Amino acid sequence: MKGFGVYTSMWTMSWDRPGAKRAIDAAVSYDMDFLEIALLNPAAVDIEHTRRHLAAHQMPVVCSLSLPKGAHASSNPDAARDHLRLVLDTASAIGAEAVTGVTYGGIGERTGLPPSETELANVATVLDFAARHATSLELGFGIEPVNRYETHLMNTARQAREMIERIGSDNIFIHLDTYHMNIEEKGAGNGIIDAGPFLRYIHLSESDRGTPGQGCCDWDEIFAVLGSIGFDSGLAMESFINMPLELAYGLSVWRPVAPSFEDVMDNGLPFLRSKARQYGLIPV
Amino acid sequence: MKGFGVYTSMWTMSWDRPGAKRAIDAAVSYDMDFLEIALLNPAAVDIEHTRRHLAAHQMPVVCSLSLPKGAHASSNPDAARDHLRLVLDTASAIGAEAVTGVTYGGIGERTGLPPSETELANVATVLDFAARHATSLELGFGIEPVNRYETHLMNTARQAREMIERIGSDNIFIHLDTYHMNIEEKGAGNGIIDAGPFLRYIHLSESDRGTPGQGCCDWDEIFAVLGSIGFDSGLAMESFINMPLELAYGLSVWRPVAPSFEDVMDNGLPFLRSKARQYGLIPV
Amino acid sequence: MKGFGVYTSMWTMSWDRPGAKRAIDAAVSYDMDFLEIALLNPAAVDIEHTRRHLAAHQMPVVCSLSLPKGAHASSNPDAARDHLRLVLDTASAIGAEAVTGVTYGGIGERTGLPPSETELANVATVLDFAARHATSLELGFGIEPVNRYETHLMNTARQAREMIERIGSDNIFIHLDTYHMNIEEKGAGNGIIDAGPFLRYIHLSESDRGTPGQGCCDWDEIFAVLGSIGFDSGLAMESFINMPLELAYGLSVWRPVAPSFEDVMDNGLPFLRSKARQYGLIPV
Amino acid sequence: MKGFGVYTSMWTMSWDRPGAKRAIDAAVSYDMDFLEIALLNPAAVDIEHTRRHLAAHQMPVVCSLSLPKGAHASSNPDAARDHLRLVLDTASAIGAEAVTGVTYGGIGERTGLPPSETELANVATVLDFAARHATSLELGFGIEPVNRYETHLMNTARQAREMIERIGSDNIFIHLDTYHMNIEEKGAGNGIIDAGPFLRYIHLSESDRGTPGQGCCDWDEIFAVLGSIGFDSGLAMESFINMPLELAYGLSVWRPVAPSFEDVMDNGLPFLRSKARQYGLIPV
Repeated sequence: MKGFGVYTSMWTMSWDRPGAKRAIDAAVSYDMDFLEIALLNPAAVDIEHTRRHLAAHQMPVVCSLSLPKGAHASSNPDAARDHLRLVLDTASAIGAEAVTGVTYGGIGERTGLPPSETELANVATVLDFAARHATSLELGFGIEPVNRYETHLMNTARQAREMIERIGSDNIFIHLDTYHMNIEEKGAGNGIIDAGPFLRYIHLSESDRGTPGQGCCDWDEIFAVLGSIGFDSGLAMESFINMPLELAYGLSVWRPVAPSFEDVMDNGLPFLRSKARQYGLIPV
Repeated sequence: MKGFGVYTSMWTMSWDRPGAKRAIDAAVSYDMDFLEIALLNPAAVDIEHTRRHLAAHQMPVVCSLSLPKGAHASSNPDAARDHLRLVLDTASAIGAEAVTGVTYGGIGERTGLPPSETELANVATVLDFAARHATSLELGFGIEPVNRYETHLMNTARQAREMIERIGSDNIFIHLDTYHMNIEEKGAGNGIIDAGPFLRYIHLSESDRGTPGQGCCDWDEIFAVLGSIGFDSGLAMESFINMPLELAYGLSVWRPVAPSFEDVMDNGLPFLRSKARQYGLIPV
Repeated sequence: MKGFGVYTSMWTMSWDRPGAKRAIDAAVSYDMDFLEIALLNPAAVDIEHTRRHLAAHQMPVVCSLSLPKGAHASSNPDAARDHLRLVLDTASAIGAEAVTGVTYGGIGERTGLPPSETELANVATVLDFAARHATSLELGFGIEPVNRYETHLMNTARQAREMIERIGSDNIFIHLDTYHMNIEEKGAGNGIIDAGPFLRYIHLSESDRGTPGQGCCDWDEIFAVLGSIGFDSGLAMESFINMPLELAYGLSVWRPVAPSFEDVMDNGLPFLRSKARQYGLIPV
Repeated sequence: MKGFGVYTSMWTMSWDRPGAKRAIDAAVSYDMDFLEIALLNPAAVDIEHTRRHLAAHQMPVVCSLSLPKGAHASSNPDAARDHLRLVLDTASAIGAEAVTGVTYGGIGERTGLPPSETELANVATVLDFAARHATSLELGFGIEPVNRYETHLMNTARQAREMIERIGSDNIFIHLDTYHMNIEEKGAGNGIIDAGPFLRYIHLSESDRGTPGQGCCDWDEIFAVLGSIGFDSGLAMESFINMPLELAYGLSVWRPVAPSFEDVMDNGLPFLRSKARQYGLIPV
């Protein structure tokens, strides 16, 4: 995971054969450096088909997920463990480099109260297991803090770091997302500062999930801070144009936030690459 | 509602006698130009007590609310109407100038789908009634778009304007909130541009609901656009330091987002006033 | 002067026949809405050639200038008057819509002291004459405040407005420049706010005169404020890639501030158009 | 030089006895961590008086300068060397920690052409000498790139770094200034990124030299990048309210850019400290 990747929700939300082919081909045509696959239903993946297509294009891949209902780490640690094992095994089988995302819970998971010590302890136990299993498979393993409405468990980079330090694992990285940072961090750069050396993946997503460069994210501050720390890991553009029903409630996008896929790819991606060049993250 | 006001959640969330006295005295001590009272439980207000204290300090007041469960305009228009009538009558009785907020629904109201035509028609009918009743009481009446997680009905200034134009009322204004604009609008100024002449109230709330000036809101763009249109209506600082339980799930603040009340009042308020002066909204 | 224009310094600094042809053809190929011609040496213009080429492409034009040594309005008002008469007559002859720029002085003109009342009175007299002559030719006439190093006479929009109000002319507009505003105004939007209804032309120039979108100008604030006032006059992109020697000292660009002309046109212009669309200045 | 300092132009531009006493007392009353003294006329300093007053308050000090006419390093290297020797000896005698500023030339020095190889070679020779002499006195030695109008020799952090690498000295640091960066760098953070480990001093000066926080500088980006690299050297607030005549032409401030000293100290300094806290540069 180096350079510019893209979250495949741009092209498909179900990683079946046609979706996989469409997404991989599109990523190649946009000259992406890697792909992020939403592994929401690992059992449905045609592993051999995906592995072959990725290898044919030498396209590196990252798998991402959130935990399904009934398998939230905070309340169902055993089910969470089983689910993560399956995801990690599947990711390994298709040749992924890392598994990341809301690996500790569900999108929209909220109890109405701050996280309890029991919930956090369960999360720590599950993440510890997953990180060890990832290590055995030579996979990286990430956790992504998301905004207050999508989880009550981990909203900031600081909380993610505290979780990693609590576990004491050496195979958990922080995966930030500019959309969530815009709501939760005290200034766009602070998530990056707080994540420090644990930061190894970042979603570049506009403040409304639409075309990057056309919203409220402070891209200059974000890229300047990434440039100043010499960030050289994966930059993944993310936008939510069309949503599978099972994510709609959690992500809560009720209107088209960009005019089209093409607008995101043809205006948003060049904008992000231009800012990355400006601050020395990719060569001029 | 002119100049700088403050949302009384800073001092109390229950508008009983001690809460009312504490909030009014504090607002006077900070030299506020008006108060915003959260009228969440109108039946519990000691009308005469509040009216007398406000009058004693010649403190203008705005009442705000969201609709309680079972009285959402989209699904329970009759109950919504009854609730709004009570709120408007109470606001009038204490001497308020306007009633505003999520006057069309509940905080956290979401069906999982975009708003249906039936829901919007119900909302329009209820707001039309409320605006007429407000007119008869010589009260202003506002609607506040909030972010995608707090409602699926109205997230942007454009949607609020379309609702007003659909109703055709001349007594509904748009009430914006910089916290929500930071998530929903395409650039901080665009909510203000889209609201146009309907804009008559704005919540100045930081991107994480903490101390204004210490987050991601683009205050220069916000104040510059307000200055350029000669905005001269109410600017209300809002922060959520401590939350009543009935709002916690909807607002989803799971950690202290500011070190203290004092930090908000002693650092945030001067920051906002300084930016307002910089862009000509209040005298130097 | 409506829509997006470009300052022809991008293609030529001497408005002779080859320069004129090259600039007009290039502007057409980039689909510009108008051209700005630097009329530094009006006597050298082949009026008929320029007029014919502009008319052939129906390309509207604005002429700009600064006053040459020996003809500064503050110290040599008679020579300034003569020079402006020649420029206005030439501009009219080629079919221009307006004459603007540092029409009151030289680039780099500084006495080492704040402007004296005598200097300002001389400037007022000269501008009054020029505005009347422009009116008789049905030309608009503008004044451009520039930064403290390029003149001591007029650095801010407020000073430009005060000059217009002192003269009492109804044919002088304010021409702002984002490069100078970035140095002189108290926030990017304030020049636009202070210019108010007098603003009828704006140079979109990056903070280092390089590719727009790659510097320190706060383009979101600039375009949001332009959008909020419904600005619908000329937006002229300006960049200084190669400089005629007579301007080098005044403009003081000692290094290439953009990699190439193409970078400015192919990255900077789309960036500006995209921001103009985002804030409603040009259609989506 | 750690923490927040202030450039003494705020209180005096002539470091005679009354000026020295006034500036030191004021800095103490504002709880500054260090002082920056403009050593424009080293021969006029009462060394013993200054040394004693600084020591009495345990106030660390940095001396800054630009080279006087006739002693520019590019054209008069011998005179420049003599002047720098005197400044360094004086700075050492009063107990300063470092000497910095436009140590390579005059404010306003411009030939009308890009720097020639001869000029740069002369500058390198003089700086090499000064850095060695500074080392022998246990003083730090800095160079400050300034904007294109104030010198043609060194406008960007990159140019400063190239000069240091050309000299190969281990006792020259880069001293940045946000006012100049706002004109010269490609984004507020890029000067800091380019200076890299050589950055050991920064002037916090607003885009118009007025009250920090009330102009165009992107303070969030600046402080976020400083925070991300763990900057822990001197942060010196600078503002030019009243100017000695000998600097007026070079600095070209023709109007009051802040309402008063008090505005800079009572609004600007708290703003800067608040941003520094926000991004972790000073403790909360």
